[in-house]
Amino acid sequence: MTILIAATGWDGEAWVKRIREALPGRDVITTERDGTWGGNAADLGSVDHVLAWHARQDVLDRVTNPRVLFSLGAGVDHLLSRKLPAGVPVVRIVDPDLTARMAEYVAWQVLHHHRQGAAYAGLQRARQWKDLGQWPASAVTVGLLGFGILGQAAAEVLKKLGFQLGGWSRTPKPVQGVRNFAGAEQLDDFLAGTDILVSLLPLTPDTTGFIDAKLLGRLRRDGPLGGPVFINAGRGRTHVEADVVAALRDGRLKAASLDVTEVEPLPADSPLWDMPNVVITPHIAAESSPDALVQQIAEQIVAFERGEPLKNVVDPQRGY
Amino acid sequence: MTILIAATGWDGEAWVKRIREALPGRDVITTERDGTWGGNAADLGSVDHVLAWHARQDVLDRVTNPRVLFSLGAGVDHLLSRKLPAGVPVVRIVDPDLTARMAEYVAWQVLHHHRQGAAYAGLQRARQWKDLGQWPASAVTVGLLGFGILGQAAAEVLKKLGFQLGGWSRTPKPVQGVRNFAGAEQLDDFLAGTDILVSLLPLTPDTTGFIDAKLLGRLRRDGPLGGPVFINAGRGRTHVEADVVAALRDGRLKAASLDVTEVEPLPADSPLWDMPNVVITPHIAAESSPDALVQQIAEQIVAFERGEPLKNVVDPQRGY
Repeated sequence: MTILIAATGWDGEAWVKRIREALPGRDVITTERDGTWGGNAADLGSVDHVLAWHARQDVLDRVTNPRVLFSLGAGVDHLLSRKLPAGVPVVRIVDPDLTARMAEYVAWQVLHHHRQGAAYAGLQRARQWKDLGQWPASAVTVGLLGFGILGQAAAEVLKKLGFQLGGWSRTPKPVQGVRNFAGAEQLDDFLAGTDILVSLLPLTPDTTGFIDAKLLGRLRRDGPLGGPVFINAGRGRTHVEADVVAALRDGRLKAASLDVTEVEPLPADSPLWDMPNVVITPHIAAESSPDALVQQIAEQIVAFERGEPLKNVVDPQRGY
Repeated sequence: MTILIAATGWDGEAWVKRIREALPGRDVITTERDGTWGGNAADLGSVDHVLAWHARQDVLDRVTNPRVLFSLGAGVDHLLSRKLPAGVPVVRIVDPDLTARMAEYVAWQVLHHHRQGAAYAGLQRARQWKDLGQWPASAVTVGLLGFGILGQAAAEVLKKLGFQLGGWSRTPKPVQGVRNFAGAEQLDDFLAGTDILVSLLPLTPDTTGFIDAKLLGRLRRDGPLGGPVFINAGRGRTHVEADVVAALRDGRLKAASLDVTEVEPLPADSPLWDMPNVVITPHIAAESSPDALVQQIAEQIVAFERGEPLKNVVDPQRGY
């Protein structure tokens, strides 16, 4: 059995070593750091399992008989954007470690805005000791746009902190203590009750440019924060960045935290870098630890070999 | 029955109104905003319950026959520093709202340091998109110095976020998922395993100046944050501020968040204001909402009138 790591920008050899340790006896091969294949063509033909992260199309094309395509991350847009062999399952690796890191990031940024972090940092720079007053978490509703595994993990932490919670997803996902909204017909209700919008949407044809001026304009305006806050920890192309900038400028948005942007790295001339009340982080909300990732992959491959069903199989039509 | 609000710096009349609503039929009187008594002396003589916040000694002296002294806040140092009538119970109001706010603040600041908030803010100012790498919460131990109601509430949130936890208190307080340390003999072990030290200590003769160079020097140095972090959300005079500054300067401390300082407001010429990796907030970690506070007071007074025992009675010897 041969496992191919088809990844761009990764240190493949370190991963080969980890996967060999987790799955002894398998052949493990890898692309070069730039994603190209430097070995002989026959080896690609014998590949059973592809572990992909921004894999090159020409490499995927030469894997003639894959049994499973694994996405090395919660997002699968990097893989579904390729031409893939029909009928081969695409599996995304959602490990508990990545889920926990996403919950950390969301809690961190929600607390930053809720507790007026930018205003207090400004007072600190001015050497001013001034109490700005504080509302309780119970007066704030955090709305999770995209309410799958990651959104639900974030909700658990936010619930413990005392926030009111809403969750919107394509199909209903009832979770205790979270007001559930599903589908296009309940989107407006969801937005109208949301003070802090946290997007964890995957990038699909349906979600591309989904968060636009119109959507942002429907958020609750009379909450205790003085205006709605937008946090994107999902995928940058789900928001229309010009609309986000315009909403921040004219006050329709009070503040934002963007871990993802339409173009990454965010261009140096983007106005977002130095807008007040905007936090930019470089797509670091939830990076998986290699060990956690490898463990999940190994478990899936071993189960697959035993004839058990794969977990987290992607629906290519739906896009996640 | 007469209730006196003896507070300095408060809008007494607004409180009188709230307490009258919660406890109809009682006489409620208040000092002036500067803490002085502007009414007639006989009224003070008839007071049964004193609700105190930095009450003036001359006012307390004229309350000749109090039945209970309530401290309007979790800290009681402002009251125990006064000469009080012997044998009258001192009760501190620890309402669930204040407890939740403290947990918010601790989670916010722990996440800020854990997720490298200062470093990422610096990169944002420089318009640099650069991944600094991230360790999981499970690699970090947060040590709660002072492990009463507030510390335990903070621990619950931090546990949900996946941090390792230690709790130190005078007497053992076993809590699931928190490594328990008690008394002077276990302090070194507690510190040696702590990456982020969160102090919620009350101010007592024993804790004054407790967090000094020697104590800070015993914190774990080889954790993933690159050095220990100190967060004080308790009382400023429990730390020796010159020692904190020196430890930040020479790298024995990597970073700090101070919500409380030896002198408040923090003097404009303090070096802490513009030290890198230092967050200064103006004693806002946990302010109670008036409504939550009044509800707790009303419940205690009604229970006391029914002959039930008071809750959260302070031990004047211990200081909390």
